[in-house]
Amino acid sequence: MREVTRRQWLATFPAFAAPGALASTALSFNEDSSHFFTSRQGKRLTLADVDGWVEQYAGTQVRELILNVNCMRTSYSSKVWDPIWRGYDPDGPDDQPLLASLTAEGRKSARRWIHSAWQLHRDGIDLYARWIAQARRRKLSPWLSMRMNDVHNVDDERAYIHSEFWRAHPEYRRVPYRFSGWTDRAFDYGHKAVREYHLLLVRELAERYDFDGLELDWMRFGYHFRPGQERDGAALLTEFTAEVRRILDAAQRKRGHRIRLGARVASRPESAMGLGMDAVTWARRGLIDFLVVTPFWATVEPDMPIEQWRALLQGTNVTLAAGLELLLRAHPGEKPYQKNSIETVRGAAAALLDRGADRIYLFNFMDSETAIENLADNDRILREAGSLSSLAGKPRRHVITYPDTWAPGEPQAIPLPQSISKDQWRAFRLPTGPVPGDGTVEIRLGVEQSHARDWKVLLNGEQCRFASDTKPGMPQSPAPMFRFDAPLSALRRGFNAIEIEAAADARIVWVELAWQPAAR
Amino acid sequence: MREVTRRQWLATFPAFAAPGALASTALSFNEDSSHFFTSRQGKRLTLADVDGWVEQYAGTQVRELILNVNCMRTSYSSKVWDPIWRGYDPDGPDDQPLLASLTAEGRKSARRWIHSAWQLHRDGIDLYARWIAQARRRKLSPWLSMRMNDVHNVDDERAYIHSEFWRAHPEYRRVPYRFSGWTDRAFDYGHKAVREYHLLLVRELAERYDFDGLELDWMRFGYHFRPGQERDGAALLTEFTAEVRRILDAAQRKRGHRIRLGARVASRPESAMGLGMDAVTWARRGLIDFLVVTPFWATVEPDMPIEQWRALLQGTNVTLAAGLELLLRAHPGEKPYQKNSIETVRGAAAALLDRGADRIYLFNFMDSETAIENLADNDRILREAGSLSSLAGKPRRHVITYPDTWAPGEPQAIPLPQSISKDQWRAFRLPTGPVPGDGTVEIRLGVEQSHARDWKVLLNGEQCRFASDTKPGMPQSPAPMFRFDAPLSALRRGFNAIEIEAAADARIVWVELAWQPAAR
Repeated sequence: MREVTRRQWLATFPAFAAPGALASTALSFNEDSSHFFTSRQGKRLTLADVDGWVEQYAGTQVRELILNVNCMRTSYSSKVWDPIWRGYDPDGPDDQPLLASLTAEGRKSARRWIHSAWQLHRDGIDLYARWIAQARRRKLSPWLSMRMNDVHNVDDERAYIHSEFWRAHPEYRRVPYRFSGWTDRAFDYGHKAVREYHLLLVRELAERYDFDGLELDWMRFGYHFRPGQERDGAALLTEFTAEVRRILDAAQRKRGHRIRLGARVASRPESAMGLGMDAVTWARRGLIDFLVVTPFWATVEPDMPIEQWRALLQGTNVTLAAGLELLLRAHPGEKPYQKNSIETVRGAAAALLDRGADRIYLFNFMDSETAIENLADNDRILREAGSLSSLAGKPRRHVITYPDTWAPGEPQAIPLPQSISKDQWRAFRLPTGPVPGDGTVEIRLGVEQSHARDWKVLLNGEQCRFASDTKPGMPQSPAPMFRFDAPLSALRRGFNAIEIEAAADARIVWVELAWQPAAR
Repeated sequence: MREVTRRQWLATFPAFAAPGALASTALSFNEDSSHFFTSRQGKRLTLADVDGWVEQYAGTQVRELILNVNCMRTSYSSKVWDPIWRGYDPDGPDDQPLLASLTAEGRKSARRWIHSAWQLHRDGIDLYARWIAQARRRKLSPWLSMRMNDVHNVDDERAYIHSEFWRAHPEYRRVPYRFSGWTDRAFDYGHKAVREYHLLLVRELAERYDFDGLELDWMRFGYHFRPGQERDGAALLTEFTAEVRRILDAAQRKRGHRIRLGARVASRPESAMGLGMDAVTWARRGLIDFLVVTPFWATVEPDMPIEQWRALLQGTNVTLAAGLELLLRAHPGEKPYQKNSIETVRGAAAALLDRGADRIYLFNFMDSETAIENLADNDRILREAGSLSSLAGKPRRHVITYPDTWAPGEPQAIPLPQSISKDQWRAFRLPTGPVPGDGTVEIRLGVEQSHARDWKVLLNGEQCRFASDTKPGMPQSPAPMFRFDAPLSALRRGFNAIEIEAAADARIVWVELAWQPAAR
């Protein structure tokens, strides 16, 4: 395929007439409301510690530093919601009432968060105010992110992490007739009291903090209505978003600068709408400026339909961010859970940017613990994953994964695993971004129940050659993996089709296309 | 849910600001290129027969009468493609060379088509010219439809139905490296010669016939490029469509009236684009006026994402038609193949019109043979399936089916069958159109390996009551079926969620929601 620039490529779609589409790309970075506290445990946190955290993002490709302030509780001293340390006795034992429902290990871990947050508060340090100021100083755009329905640990009604409001109102939960997973006990935004309760926090945030933008994170945890009531719910969330916009309008008159509004929603328009997240209406009505489309958590999703989102956003000024999650899993049953490597991050970022994302948005890519395995790679990701030019020429891996979030009852498209019989054909496809320069292209399959030596594998209709068994390194399939060498000339911008004819009955559990530059 | 009109309902979506969305609704009707000839066999066809065929659609809800003129051959006397009777000896035996590759039964059937078409030609009757004139006389809008890649019977290279061009050029076929299904031998529109060959017929049609519109039927059979080359292919089909528009522009100067251009494409935007059918670009560039989104053949698809298509077509003047197919199947493995009944047609039409379709488009709903089982119902369909007001108050059935057309390698979302374990939950969803008036709502499940008596079934979070085993009549599940009575008040406009908890391990193979008016 002839070489064209991203600008020319995008312009071949009418949707890319939209102004946002040709904005320069960058990274957005999300920091959750517990990681900083938990990871800095065992010491008294100082202003230097607080400011120092910001420093590692200065001078990288990160443009928006997006600070999550809450789960069901806040990590700052809220007057309208419960701070994480409500009920905490700093001098009490680990089995004090607040922590009593946890295991001994759970108590220690929870206490690290609670104690550090309490200590900062006691010392008169408002973490988010300080981070916002420091971010501006270091040319980062400070945002706050509010989790709209965090349901960590709701199997344990007594856990420290829940709000008293949630505990007091089981009638406000979305699935009162069963408990088959955390999201069954999420708040049902069909109740006015639930919406009002969440608007309290929005108002406090807008009053208390001087941020560039506020993100409503509807993807923690993604389920906000009783099953079947999402269509009515969509109208409610749109009205909620309009109310938040009005709150920010008032705040920006006070602050004297524009305050943007963002939202995180499910990765595919159909699923987002099916969950009551009518992001296209929010964009077209001018309520939001920033839209993050993202999987929930279980895996990164390099095949989010960015072109379709762009087409739907045409005519708006919304910045479109493609959300990466830390994990990479080939299919829902895969164990153990594995994380992305820098090569798979490059693969996802290259594909998503090439399809028209304005941002790569990093979620759970923090600076320790909930972090990429090799922390040195984390720093490289911050300096290269936000732009095709910085990604160019570096080894990358494109792995088939799956969308992990679906509306209730929505038919699910999950590409793997696939059973295959002898002499049968299966097709897969992978978006791989711009065609890279000189180098090698490998197709890597994870296969159970058969060796793939005699299989036929084609890349876009061109024959590949069986090379060897392979272990590409983490992440990789727990099943035996096989490598096929593909002609570089077969590779295409956009989707690449991989067709497979099996020589024996088997189960395909991993499909990957990897590119490495030619040795110099 | 409060009662709102379709106009108000659609207006709750920004996409429905589009002018087309609020046009009055109607039916479009497709007649294929063989049915008339085959079904009128054994007699010499006269002008009265020809005109009489049109008569049955006059005065119904049919607005566009869409006449398909070709498969790989034409059913009229083309100068640029092969007429269906090329090589036919009307006085020869059934085993003459043209028919020699067929079975004895196949020969008889093929000959009915060939002979009647030949006879009309010999008698100087141009069927399509006559139908076009007669349609106008009877206030129907006459269109022609060109199948862009018909591959019936290509397992038999010698079959009468193929063009000499196709036989002479195996190098123009899309999958030269295997034969696993008819579409592997479809033309590859990546070849300029293939595009030119098809433009020849477009030019002839525009020259020869005075139609209101020309439809490019890309859904016969839906696959037009080598696997993996669809993205490059999309640009080619867009250029092809632009060239057809130029041909029609020239023709309309000659005819003195507007000539519209239509296209039939795959039912979901992602799949259509993945097959190289960039319908959104065609619409936004003003190349097409009429877009039919449709399954291929294996089943009707009442859950096509019409809202999403409308949102993508916003700002264009394109009429959006939702294509129905004759068959109804709950899942790809279901046998025997069953047809829709009038109740399932009503269910599909009500859902699709309510979601914003401007037309219900009938394909393979012809007046005999390839027709709905009860021909008296066919006439009723023509008088009620095109409008919500004529559908109101009549019994209807909403059955979960599946999309039958996917881009190569595209992950497939197929809701059934679903295995379920004891005490496990499964959710399904059904779009059911406007909430009907007083009556009864039944959930009907087809279940293998277990009786469903003790199962829990909820409709939008409200409990349903097990009633009985049931056999609702064709179409129905080949598996045992069970009926649950649902509260009418639980029914919602838009999607309805059906949640099921099994009391034993089983396989769910059919999910349906049926509404019947209260007895008077």
